[in-house]
Amino acid sequence: MGTLNSINPFTGEAQFDPIAESTPAEVDAVVARSVAASSHWAKVAPAERARALRAIAEALDADPTPLAELAHQETALGADRLVGEIARTSFQLRLFAEELETGQLLAAEIDEAVPGSPPAGHPRLVRRYVALGPVAVFGAGNFPFAFGQLGGDTASALAAGCTVIVKDHPGHPHLAQRLMELARLALTGAGCDADVLQSVKGMAAGSALVSHPAVHAGAFTGSQKAGRALFDIATSRPQPIPFYGELGSINPVFITQAALAARRDELASELAASLTMGRGQLCTKPSVIFVPDDQAFIDGLVHELSAVAPGPLLSPLSLERYIQGVSGVADVTGVAELIPISAGADLSVAPALLATGFDNFVKHADELLEECFGPVGLLVRCESEGDFDVAIERLEGALVATVHAVPDVDGALASHLVDELSFIAGRVVVNGWPTGLAVTPWQHHGGPYPASTSVLHTSVGSQAMMRFVRPVVIQNVSDEQWPGLL
Amino acid sequence: MGTLNSINPFTGEAQFDPIAESTPAEVDAVVARSVAASSHWAKVAPAERARALRAIAEALDADPTPLAELAHQETALGADRLVGEIARTSFQLRLFAEELETGQLLAAEIDEAVPGSPPAGHPRLVRRYVALGPVAVFGAGNFPFAFGQLGGDTASALAAGCTVIVKDHPGHPHLAQRLMELARLALTGAGCDADVLQSVKGMAAGSALVSHPAVHAGAFTGSQKAGRALFDIATSRPQPIPFYGELGSINPVFITQAALAARRDELASELAASLTMGRGQLCTKPSVIFVPDDQAFIDGLVHELSAVAPGPLLSPLSLERYIQGVSGVADVTGVAELIPISAGADLSVAPALLATGFDNFVKHADELLEECFGPVGLLVRCESEGDFDVAIERLEGALVATVHAVPDVDGALASHLVDELSFIAGRVVVNGWPTGLAVTPWQHHGGPYPASTSVLHTSVGSQAMMRFVRPVVIQNVSDEQWPGLL
Repeated sequence: MGTLNSINPFTGEAQFDPIAESTPAEVDAVVARSVAASSHWAKVAPAERARALRAIAEALDADPTPLAELAHQETALGADRLVGEIARTSFQLRLFAEELETGQLLAAEIDEAVPGSPPAGHPRLVRRYVALGPVAVFGAGNFPFAFGQLGGDTASALAAGCTVIVKDHPGHPHLAQRLMELARLALTGAGCDADVLQSVKGMAAGSALVSHPAVHAGAFTGSQKAGRALFDIATSRPQPIPFYGELGSINPVFITQAALAARRDELASELAASLTMGRGQLCTKPSVIFVPDDQAFIDGLVHELSAVAPGPLLSPLSLERYIQGVSGVADVTGVAELIPISAGADLSVAPALLATGFDNFVKHADELLEECFGPVGLLVRCESEGDFDVAIERLEGALVATVHAVPDVDGALASHLVDELSFIAGRVVVNGWPTGLAVTPWQHHGGPYPASTSVLHTSVGSQAMMRFVRPVVIQNVSDEQWPGLL
Repeated sequence: MGTLNSINPFTGEAQFDPIAESTPAEVDAVVARSVAASSHWAKVAPAERARALRAIAEALDADPTPLAELAHQETALGADRLVGEIARTSFQLRLFAEELETGQLLAAEIDEAVPGSPPAGHPRLVRRYVALGPVAVFGAGNFPFAFGQLGGDTASALAAGCTVIVKDHPGHPHLAQRLMELARLALTGAGCDADVLQSVKGMAAGSALVSHPAVHAGAFTGSQKAGRALFDIATSRPQPIPFYGELGSINPVFITQAALAARRDELASELAASLTMGRGQLCTKPSVIFVPDDQAFIDGLVHELSAVAPGPLLSPLSLERYIQGVSGVADVTGVAELIPISAGADLSVAPALLATGFDNFVKHADELLEECFGPVGLLVRCESEGDFDVAIERLEGALVATVHAVPDVDGALASHLVDELSFIAGRVVVNGWPTGLAVTPWQHHGGPYPASTSVLHTSVGSQAMMRFVRPVVIQNVSDEQWPGLL
């Protein structure tokens, strides 16, 4: 097998020691340990799993600065933002712990026996949950903590009673190792089997995990290309397994005439902030903005974006893909480069802004709706709000859609847009921005393909746990007759 | 396109008029009408969908005898049993209606806004459900009512707010037509758009449905081969869709020494009844029975099975597959034919019984665990209950597993077996039989592959509805600011 190099995103040079990729035999051994740890983990009391999650959260919070600094060296995401992301990650681990301690999601449900013949009569049925078994987790490069090694997929699978095998992200291999060591130590300290959480390294190891007969589910956050390839492996196995891929999307924004009139400057400044948060490398980035044609708004947005400092993307590879993606859209007939993409020998990029007219958008929607991971947006100048319905018909599935409207003026229009956008998105934001996804019990982060490969499920919020359990009905058992069985 | 012939299962001859298969243009037209009906249906009040389901139930109950007789002519399942199945089908339609009228499954959930900065602070989130859109339903041949045209998949998808397109089952094409006419009339009578429920005919039309971009989910009950082929189409689309295939399984039974000693005769007689219910053509049939070696039990079972009258299977094709399947198992080294398969020019079959020793089972498990749809079982003579754990490791996913044990004697053993069987089955029955699946709110009919292609989901019970909706979070909307929006 080959080795993985950590690449300095500021220089493009290899840094730290190279890391060996997992061999097929190593992958098999990791899976075997996961299976061995699995049957106990699936049966322990939820409170014990909660204790394990809290132990990992405490280990993260104990000394976040060195973790954030290492992450910054590998991702250029900024130490401050990364310290915030660590807090979000431990908060998320504790959310699942709390659900296990006091929640009702995993509670058993009972249909008491009904005497008489069917269809009305039936024996007693107790419906409870069992964990699926070992889960393969593929974290994201852009959220090395919150969607990474110890992020939502890992936390929710562990909470569900599944063991987890993470495929380390190649963009931050040293952070990945550090986090795995930290979490396994925390698990041991909490009196748990550390093998409930393990990792493998390298692309081949990742594919091997998803095809391994003893792995029972996959969870992924990342690009459409990689996610789809793994989804295809998961679904074409002799025994297919659920594969929860969050593949990102273009996340459309609709701004009404009234909203523009009422809050033109604020909208320009807030949109610029949302577009460039995490240097535009967020799966919730508002990529395509449908807005009534308004030069003052455009000027304001150009002004705000031009004031954002340039900086490097996650990696030289990210930069290459970004330039390719933006050029592809900019080359479409009728697209204006309001702020051209910054290129050059330096690895840093400044925000870019493209624009096109509504008719041209309709004509070239397929080419224009490519997700470009980085600080760029596409403005679609609309004639009127009547264009919005036509636009929605052209859009594919999205994680989130956004509407800016004025309550007293746009009541009916906003209702209509929220209803229609609900058919293509997993979340609809009104008078806010799609970035800054809240971690709450009922959050939903998913949506129609390509937002998610599993349209019913969420990768954030307490319900994320329910992706890794399945119901089992125990028929004809009462506590009186079979004490302790249930 | 070709034509479909209804085949008389008693003679193997074509009967009634041939039916034309749907052309590609007809399939497109049906889907277009389904899409047109879909947006209204997804938005109507749940009570209106409940009214539609109740109207179909009433139409079924109004005059069941001619329906049962037509079904019997096409399936040989017996008019009495089919009248019972119609009652079960209308009961099921009403169960979903009741859930829509008074249940909480589709209720919105709210995370109220929390002031402050993230991760703790967040805007108001309202999580509600939207219907997926048009659903392709493939009913089963062995339950022309309860798992057919108007069965659980259709009822649950309509309840969820999805429109439905059924691919008519080729085993009962005239009944399928009759049921579709009846249901569409009932829908019109209830003031609903009849196009929420339509059908297409022919295998090519079925594949075309599952690959159609405007179809958003598939639901199937039937053979592993056909179900897997459709699952593969659904998951390899450019935009994959959920495909809920219930493919059947071998449904193991475990009988303890104490249970055998206490209820030897009853167990033999009840097992014979369960094995031959619906002439063994049930996806819940207890196909493989692990039992301590006991000649008296075997003699009793042979006696009971020999007393069951022969009769035809669903179709000459079913018979051909059955003979092939049973011969395949009987030909495995070390398998005894306690009751050989009845063959001959006549289309009817009598129950058959095969047996093998435990060591031989372990050696040939893969060949012995083929599902044979028809009145046959395989006894595995165990040395002791210690063999049960080894057996469970060899089994693949099952819809249901069964344990017969004695409460005061087998407490620990039964607990252990129920726990272990929970990892391979969707339902575990204690001191009962797997056939006669109850239709209740919390029922679970599914399980690890091949029991289901979608291990988290059930095709029976109120939760079946949740396969056809997905959550959407509406962020930052309050009723005060946006009256009527939510």
